[in-house]
Amino acid sequence: MIEVHVKEVFFDFLSGSGIVLLTDLEEKKVLPIWVGIFEAQSIQMKMKGNPVQRPVTHDLLKNIIEDMGHKVVRVEIHDIVENTYYARIVLGGKQKERLIDSRPSDAIALAVRADCPVFLAEHLYEKAQKKEEFESSLKEEFYKKYLESLEEEELKKA
Amino acid sequence: MIEVHVKEVFFDFLSGSGIVLLTDLEEKKVLPIWVGIFEAQSIQMKMKGNPVQRPVTHDLLKNIIEDMGHKVVRVEIHDIVENTYYARIVLGGKQKERLIDSRPSDAIALAVRADCPVFLAEHLYEKAQKKEEFESSLKEEFYKKYLESLEEEELKKA
Repeated sequence: MIEVHVKEVFFDFLSGSGIVLLTDLEEKKVLPIWVGIFEAQSIQMKMKGNPVQRPVTHDLLKNIIEDMGHKVVRVEIHDIVENTYYARIVLGGKQKERLIDSRPSDAIALAVRADCPVFLAEHLYEKAQKKEEFESSLKEEFYKKYLESLEEEELKKA
Repeated sequence: MIEVHVKEVFFDFLSGSGIVLLTDLEEKKVLPIWVGIFEAQSIQMKMKGNPVQRPVTHDLLKNIIEDMGHKVVRVEIHDIVENTYYARIVLGGKQKERLIDSRPSDAIALAVRADCPVFLAEHLYEKAQKKEEFESSLKEEFYKKYLESLEEEELKKA
């Protein structure tokens, strides 16, 4: 497995989703993972160190794990099936390691709080793009959406 | 403490919040608690038994607690400070009971999944309203907001 970290979090309010951009430690390649808006906010909130009035659900999750004497050792994004990524949270501490199935979004939101590494299976890293390629394809997609929204406006006026 | 259950979940998309309506088991009085949209959706999703494609964060929280050999015994909404309610999750199972501080929304979203009782401190139950009083005050508030939104529209046109 390849160690990765969260390079950036984007929000696509048109589709109501967030994009978590993962990259290897040398930042050679990037892999975007589409997640829910709430999960994207939770990841970004912790990364940017925004002070929160009250702990969010992922803070509670970390508190409960640690209160029970366990710790989050690492998280692994290990597979993709029909465009859906699958991950697991590896818990350790007093007992032997336990693997818990999780959406990648929850696993990453927990990892940024537990300050533990995130790993990506090699066959998934192979699908990752060069950073420049991803950026130009994202710009193209946003531009396409922008043109579509303009066309819709024109249709409404017509 | 008084045992309560979730009577209903409302959504106020204008303010971007949800309202969880708690009631005692005889449904004499109701207490509305304002929560985030995500948490309200998570509570309603489980109550209505909507099939979900993938487990949400509160499902993961329950899975992790149970995987570690613990169980959610009950949740308690025990205080209010400056219009903010405070709750705790009571974990039991193999070890002695442990109390974990939580927002009421997370505690309730977990309780509906763990099928455990929710308790409300007596001094909070005293502040609860009769069901009919609450419904008429809610209608009044929605009507007031509706009038305000009409006025804003008029101002925009002027």
